[in-house]
Amino acid sequence: MIFRTSDLRAVTRSELTAIIRRKNSLLCVGLDTEEHLVPEHFQSESHPVRAYNEAIVEVTHDVAVAYKLNLAFYEALGDQGWVDLEATIGYIRSKGDCFLIADAKRGDIGNTARKYAEAFFDRLDVDAVTLSPYMGKDSITPFLGRSGKWAIVLGVTSNPGAEDFQFQRTAQGERLYETVIKRTATWGTKDELMFVVGATRPEILAEVRAIVPDHFFLVPGVGAQGGDLTAVLQAGMTSDGGLLINSSRGVLYAGLGKEAIPAARNAALALQQTMERALRMRGVV
Amino acid sequence: MIFRTSDLRAVTRSELTAIIRRKNSLLCVGLDTEEHLVPEHFQSESHPVRAYNEAIVEVTHDVAVAYKLNLAFYEALGDQGWVDLEATIGYIRSKGDCFLIADAKRGDIGNTARKYAEAFFDRLDVDAVTLSPYMGKDSITPFLGRSGKWAIVLGVTSNPGAEDFQFQRTAQGERLYETVIKRTATWGTKDELMFVVGATRPEILAEVRAIVPDHFFLVPGVGAQGGDLTAVLQAGMTSDGGLLINSSRGVLYAGLGKEAIPAARNAALALQQTMERALRMRGVV
Repeated sequence: MIFRTSDLRAVTRSELTAIIRRKNSLLCVGLDTEEHLVPEHFQSESHPVRAYNEAIVEVTHDVAVAYKLNLAFYEALGDQGWVDLEATIGYIRSKGDCFLIADAKRGDIGNTARKYAEAFFDRLDVDAVTLSPYMGKDSITPFLGRSGKWAIVLGVTSNPGAEDFQFQRTAQGERLYETVIKRTATWGTKDELMFVVGATRPEILAEVRAIVPDHFFLVPGVGAQGGDLTAVLQAGMTSDGGLLINSSRGVLYAGLGKEAIPAARNAALALQQTMERALRMRGVV
Repeated sequence: MIFRTSDLRAVTRSELTAIIRRKNSLLCVGLDTEEHLVPEHFQSESHPVRAYNEAIVEVTHDVAVAYKLNLAFYEALGDQGWVDLEATIGYIRSKGDCFLIADAKRGDIGNTARKYAEAFFDRLDVDAVTLSPYMGKDSITPFLGRSGKWAIVLGVTSNPGAEDFQFQRTAQGERLYETVIKRTATWGTKDELMFVVGATRPEILAEVRAIVPDHFFLVPGVGAQGGDLTAVLQAGMTSDGGLLINSSRGVLYAGLGKEAIPAARNAALALQQTMERALRMRGVV
């Protein structure tokens, strides 16, 4: 077992790599589930979002290494959204062998950051939480130092607004994201820190891979945002995988109505198969 | 009435200034309430955090222009924390004439940012939400364009980690926070955008005031973090106030046990009186 059910979860780096090798996959499924997009036949459920998430997890968990829950989509539903979030996490946990990410992009000072670490690691009991680096070291370190729990810090994001500040040239001649990644990497180890590196520009991904050759990257932007999966695999893979490649809408909304669940299965499987080919060529599996 | 009870709230800039003038105050009370720090005699309540918040609001709302609720402290309590958050917001709203800030420091891409805007503005119905700028324009603009709703973007924060990236010198020779503030100010108007500017270095506050002479600033760091109130007032005030100065622990935990509530009142009153003197000297009131 990767985690202890009676205890807090913990997925170390070697355990994460073991999941990758067992599933021949680097796939992370993003459960950015919007109530109004949940197919008709789930709408009669008392918790349509939770019911849809469970159906998606049911048909993807054999090929998905990780699930990423974007907090915004649950907070928009208030306390009931929080109930859906906890129920979905419990359901994923019952399937075993999955890495659980709270996509929260939090970033706050010392005592508040400690409170967020408590909310995510102790209360929600996820394995990882995404963080924004703007407030610096004391906004990141409260999430470090817990074996098998991870901080995933925004490095280069895949949205157009990434240009505004992340690509800002510094006085040292590098881009801000380079400074952020280099400096953040000194605050913890590769066994507790990952970076978000967008998929939309594989050449940037290759450049970041050269800066931090051994860190895992969470890569959003494949699919709806236009990132090329093969280019991402080529630019970012390492000998133990090194990537969690996220698809949210590409899986969740792959088909309509009664087709949604089988289409989600097919979309996840197609991504996993491309990943498996790359993992085999590279000798990871 | 500043807001419509049957409708979504909206506090325009002129309404905010009217509250400041009515209360002779720039005080924002931060409800960063931690369950284990709530005094003994509230612990028997079914919701100790909510009960303590209501008691604090009861004795401070005549001198507090704004309340700031730090989401971390509520998320750490799960769905019940969300219930406490909504109940506290409802209670503050029932007092009328207060500006409500969700201190969330969110920052995410387009569709997620829109979801957060929905969570905060439509569901929680607060007047303002704090945002992190790292992801750029498309992470901020979904919060703009709603009359009487505000985005409060992190400029310079008051924590030690602010040095790590915010003070990074750019190729143009300015600090990153200057670039962030200048560029962000072009994405909206001074009637919908504020900046977080820390209190710990008043000379920085004066410098930011020179960059954006007409924007409101939310100023944390007075009190527990060591910022000097008089220096902040001198460096940041404008002819219509221009500041919301936050105190969290300095009010919440001003006294112990049965003394907590009267001590909170005295702490808030002392801050308001210093603010009133400065507002009168400057001719704002």
